[in-house]
Amino acid sequence: MKNTFGTSIAVTLFGESHGEAIGAVLDGLAPGIEIDEALIREKLSQRRPSGKISTPRVEADEFSIVSGVFDGRTTGTPLCIIIPNTNKKSGDYDRVARLARPGHADYTAECKYHGFQDHRGGGHFSGRLTAALVAAGAILLGALERRGIRVATHISALGSVCDRGFNGNDLENDIKKLNGSTFAVLDDGAAEAMRAEILAAAEEGDSVGGVLETVVCGLPAGVGEPWFDTVEGLLAHAMFSIPGVKGVEFGAGFGISKLRGSEANDPFRAGEGGAVTLTNNNGGINGGITNGMPVVFRCAVKPTPSIFKAQQTVDVKSGENAELTLTGRHDPAIVHRARAVVDCMTALTLADLLAQRYGTDWLAGECPSGK
Amino acid sequence: MKNTFGTSIAVTLFGESHGEAIGAVLDGLAPGIEIDEALIREKLSQRRPSGKISTPRVEADEFSIVSGVFDGRTTGTPLCIIIPNTNKKSGDYDRVARLARPGHADYTAECKYHGFQDHRGGGHFSGRLTAALVAAGAILLGALERRGIRVATHISALGSVCDRGFNGNDLENDIKKLNGSTFAVLDDGAAEAMRAEILAAAEEGDSVGGVLETVVCGLPAGVGEPWFDTVEGLLAHAMFSIPGVKGVEFGAGFGISKLRGSEANDPFRAGEGGAVTLTNNNGGINGGITNGMPVVFRCAVKPTPSIFKAQQTVDVKSGENAELTLTGRHDPAIVHRARAVVDCMTALTLADLLAQRYGTDWLAGECPSGK
Amino acid sequence: MKNTFGTSIAVTLFGESHGEAIGAVLDGLAPGIEIDEALIREKLSQRRPSGKISTPRVEADEFSIVSGVFDGRTTGTPLCIIIPNTNKKSGDYDRVARLARPGHADYTAECKYHGFQDHRGGGHFSGRLTAALVAAGAILLGALERRGIRVATHISALGSVCDRGFNGNDLENDIKKLNGSTFAVLDDGAAEAMRAEILAAAEEGDSVGGVLETVVCGLPAGVGEPWFDTVEGLLAHAMFSIPGVKGVEFGAGFGISKLRGSEANDPFRAGEGGAVTLTNNNGGINGGITNGMPVVFRCAVKPTPSIFKAQQTVDVKSGENAELTLTGRHDPAIVHRARAVVDCMTALTLADLLAQRYGTDWLAGECPSGK
Amino acid sequence: MKNTFGTSIAVTLFGESHGEAIGAVLDGLAPGIEIDEALIREKLSQRRPSGKISTPRVEADEFSIVSGVFDGRTTGTPLCIIIPNTNKKSGDYDRVARLARPGHADYTAECKYHGFQDHRGGGHFSGRLTAALVAAGAILLGALERRGIRVATHISALGSVCDRGFNGNDLENDIKKLNGSTFAVLDDGAAEAMRAEILAAAEEGDSVGGVLETVVCGLPAGVGEPWFDTVEGLLAHAMFSIPGVKGVEFGAGFGISKLRGSEANDPFRAGEGGAVTLTNNNGGINGGITNGMPVVFRCAVKPTPSIFKAQQTVDVKSGENAELTLTGRHDPAIVHRARAVVDCMTALTLADLLAQRYGTDWLAGECPSGK
Repeated sequence: MKNTFGTSIAVTLFGESHGEAIGAVLDGLAPGIEIDEALIREKLSQRRPSGKISTPRVEADEFSIVSGVFDGRTTGTPLCIIIPNTNKKSGDYDRVARLARPGHADYTAECKYHGFQDHRGGGHFSGRLTAALVAAGAILLGALERRGIRVATHISALGSVCDRGFNGNDLENDIKKLNGSTFAVLDDGAAEAMRAEILAAAEEGDSVGGVLETVVCGLPAGVGEPWFDTVEGLLAHAMFSIPGVKGVEFGAGFGISKLRGSEANDPFRAGEGGAVTLTNNNGGINGGITNGMPVVFRCAVKPTPSIFKAQQTVDVKSGENAELTLTGRHDPAIVHRARAVVDCMTALTLADLLAQRYGTDWLAGECPSGK
Repeated sequence: MKNTFGTSIAVTLFGESHGEAIGAVLDGLAPGIEIDEALIREKLSQRRPSGKISTPRVEADEFSIVSGVFDGRTTGTPLCIIIPNTNKKSGDYDRVARLARPGHADYTAECKYHGFQDHRGGGHFSGRLTAALVAAGAILLGALERRGIRVATHISALGSVCDRGFNGNDLENDIKKLNGSTFAVLDDGAAEAMRAEILAAAEEGDSVGGVLETVVCGLPAGVGEPWFDTVEGLLAHAMFSIPGVKGVEFGAGFGISKLRGSEANDPFRAGEGGAVTLTNNNGGINGGITNGMPVVFRCAVKPTPSIFKAQQTVDVKSGENAELTLTGRHDPAIVHRARAVVDCMTALTLADLLAQRYGTDWLAGECPSGK
Repeated sequence: MKNTFGTSIAVTLFGESHGEAIGAVLDGLAPGIEIDEALIREKLSQRRPSGKISTPRVEADEFSIVSGVFDGRTTGTPLCIIIPNTNKKSGDYDRVARLARPGHADYTAECKYHGFQDHRGGGHFSGRLTAALVAAGAILLGALERRGIRVATHISALGSVCDRGFNGNDLENDIKKLNGSTFAVLDDGAAEAMRAEILAAAEEGDSVGGVLETVVCGLPAGVGEPWFDTVEGLLAHAMFSIPGVKGVEFGAGFGISKLRGSEANDPFRAGEGGAVTLTNNNGGINGGITNGMPVVFRCAVKPTPSIFKAQQTVDVKSGENAELTLTGRHDPAIVHRARAVVDCMTALTLADLLAQRYGTDWLAGECPSGK
Repeated sequence: MKNTFGTSIAVTLFGESHGEAIGAVLDGLAPGIEIDEALIREKLSQRRPSGKISTPRVEADEFSIVSGVFDGRTTGTPLCIIIPNTNKKSGDYDRVARLARPGHADYTAECKYHGFQDHRGGGHFSGRLTAALVAAGAILLGALERRGIRVATHISALGSVCDRGFNGNDLENDIKKLNGSTFAVLDDGAAEAMRAEILAAAEEGDSVGGVLETVVCGLPAGVGEPWFDTVEGLLAHAMFSIPGVKGVEFGAGFGISKLRGSEANDPFRAGEGGAVTLTNNNGGINGGITNGMPVVFRCAVKPTPSIFKAQQTVDVKSGENAELTLTGRHDPAIVHRARAVVDCMTALTLADLLAQRYGTDWLAGECPSGK
């Protein structure tokens, strides 16, 4: 379904970096969900560039909900959220429109759209569009939280610097710390080192990547499907939409392939309200279905492809070899910004699975009534 | 859509390990695709347990195509392929039906299906169902090959043993070697070491995991979507359906997060029939869309959860703690068998994307006619 | 999605008239639904030809549920139901394979499938496939009934003979009478006249059509969507799959176009458990959503296209003009048989809408448990 | 998928009558389709109220395409079209917000959305939203026309007045006449009588309905699916989204049920570029698939439910009986306006089917290139 994702709750994304606006339509929302505009603004600010470690481009991200909300709550009909593009410097981009930026979608867009694509600033491929995903997803992030389901993401690695892992004995505190922070790291020392690594790369006209680790607490056991629409499959499908993500792993992930079965299996023990596992190498998912433990996954984010070093490339119109040197405003890293997108895409994906399982009204809580 | 995957070409999976039969329905196939039964049998044999490194269980995998094929070619209407279950020893399983096997879906199935699931041998969650996926996918593997698109997978790591990587200068030869082999490894020495590692684990009543690496050659540039239905997102969605897969990465994958942008970006150069890239850290995909280079990805496969060591668990009916010691016939590794499933799920996913882009008839070749 | 219909509960249809088997996969069923095989057999017998008013072809319709059922109840995983084709007289059909039967799909199949279709007996287009829809739908018909939702269809017109309408004051009795009958007519006198009309047409080597009227009682108010997935839109989508249906209308249907608004509007009055309407010109649906009144609709069924009179046609291979005179076994009417298909497609469609609204488990009743 | 319709080309609808804006997202468009803004404006003007036979409400329908178009052509990425709501007199509506208007969706919306719906002016159920469908569909109407596929609709009946039928021998002329007219009638005398009938109803504070008949020429044979996604099923699904449509029939429609098979079957004859039929009782569709003849169908449109006569109803909050007398601005008929919506929904549905069959780029013509 191309630019639509989801079954019971679906998001449709539209817009181009230098067009009039970007936006998203959320369909399938329960009626009566409170719109927490402060939360939307907070997640947008976590995604927004800020400081020396980001592009100096200023993005206002003033969103407008043009449908689907009445008196501060969802109506149950499609919610369209629009973010006008106010700060467009097309000049920066037009100059190199014919030269495919390596690591970007310029060449593949030309192949797919035969030259009709809006090439300015990456057009529809621009990371700018994730602002609309964040705005839409934040609505579900809020709704999930009210139902006891919390999502948080930290930068587990940036270049060569690693954060500490989640503290399984005090996840609540870790989640709180991350969701209150703009640069989402659990170990403050690691945060300093990461910023330094970004600045070092920026000084060289280069960029860095990293790994984001996400935890979801409070999901009921029994959500997901055994084949195809596994929790892993759906979350990965969503995560790979985020520009720059090149790998997704759950629980012990690639590391599990080095374990013996006796180490990898998570032993069950009786717990309150259901079984718990003593370890969580399977990331809260067995057979594609949640087991009630925290869902844990990591996304590998590549270094921003926009760098200031000279690069070899081709002219997409003539097909001939060329050299490209970018100017303009670019992020030396997007990992710290992508974290809000991961949170919001996670919320969109899980809210959909929950709505499929428990019906339309579930997300708004028991017996909502607007009378 | 739960047990259905795909848009223009869709597969629907059904069956349980110890039921009457397993099977799959393939819909959206072009009319006129030749059914190469030998290829189906070959892929099934690559998936089938054999020798000491697999379960001694004998699976005949005699498939029957009950619809959608006439005179040896697809009709264009739904193709249903059925594999009867002939070798069922329910006794082996029933004894432990109440004790959730760690790492398996017994507990999550109980949560989702409230005890109505067919628990015998894993029921609908059984790896046995992948035989139906392989049979269905092999039809598309053959069709893709006739259109110049080849898929091959090798065991890039098994436990601590690593295979050599693909030889980018002679991919054809690597692909040929792999597709003609039952234990898909490029370096014969590695194959020996891997078998030894499996046997060592088996002797201890334990199991091992590994990593599968897949290459797809011959894909046209311009296939895939910028958001959601990215090539990465769809392939990962498909791969996470394969039991035991806990991570999927493309190109340099998680390793790309440690590179600088200047290292990670794949420089373009003019080539015949389109641009080529000098490196392939992006795995043949930019912005979710194929760039004409080989698509490369890896799946992390966990060690088989069925082991013979005693394990802590719970009784799914009473919720109480218990100890479980499995008997019966189990695989000390499934990585080498899963490789055929990866090939076939890859074919299903890519054939769907190609049919969406080029229309229903494309897969059967230009201007097919049965007159 | 071609041969799949439904969102939360989906049916996938496969098979050809003279192939090995026909069948259907039902996915998304709640676990714990009782399989009432007697009801499946009853609906199949209502669809089966019998007596002089039908084809003398004997169809055993022995169905086999090969997956998704355990101990007599649905498991919640895909249910595959298969009906082998036992009585195939291909000889009757092969003779005329090149001559397109007017009113049939022979010519359009040739255009779509380029000659690769299985042409024997209509192949995948054969009314025979509705047996699989009936078998699958009967499972949902039973489940809906246990939740208080009843479906019944009568032959409101056959050729020039009309049945009486539903008695709004005693719908229960009408529904009971219809569901206990093989030739579903409310007025026994009309039944006699209809049979006579069929036999008269048969004697002339001709065929007759008719109109089926369906009522659904017990649906909760608030089901359906305002745009696209309206109750009308989904039911019509389903009904037009039934071979021979050329019109679908709800409530007063085409007749409503001749009323004034003051006559057509259904006035609301306070009732027990919600409002009721004094008339039902809107067929229980306002704005695409159920209002709690009976859903009423009619399907126009064309006369069976297989007739014994000589007809003008073309040879699908050469494209040249030809004359066709059919022999073999054919139905002079299918209206009375199609009624079971309408019931079952109605059940499939509504069960899906209910599952979308109330979640997966709703259909099995409150808090099912197989423990 | 609720407010989204289509597979390869999909439309997502959003907005409320008295909200900020209404709009639609079109996804799956081929790149390079020319945007004919004059055609969009023309179809919008055909839908817009005008003269004494419509509501005196002035709707500017100034649309804005905020994404998916670059240099006057589609980019191939989602096209979002927005129509701001400028003329909102909420006061007219708020007064009766608690009283369910008979024939409208007020009561069912309350049941479905638990009181959270935007009730002003019908909210998301308002016929106003069809302006967005028209704007989106007009883009496809233009694209289809450039590929030789033309769509036209006339008012075949309004209340008791009937138009003449299409002239099969000069369809081109009929189509031209209709598409150039605001009040789409083939017989000018009938047009006069229809206007008189509307005015007569209006004077009594009442309203009238009618029947719209649509013809589609130039469709290739072989489009559509045998089951579920039949051309009839998909068009009907689309048509029942149009507010007030209560019946859809193809070819001879309900009338075919009164014919004998020998009359109903359309005999084939050899024609240029494929077979033709001597009659068209099947409306250009056999077995759910186009046969190359004009596709013909009719929609029954009920009289506008907003009338000025006193009506019995209930208070949706208290559930108690009440009497409702509407004031404000209302249409005594919408049939003549709905015609543009039928044209545009037809274009959306058929463009989707064509894109599924022939691939993404087909709609833009052979080998488009923006280089």
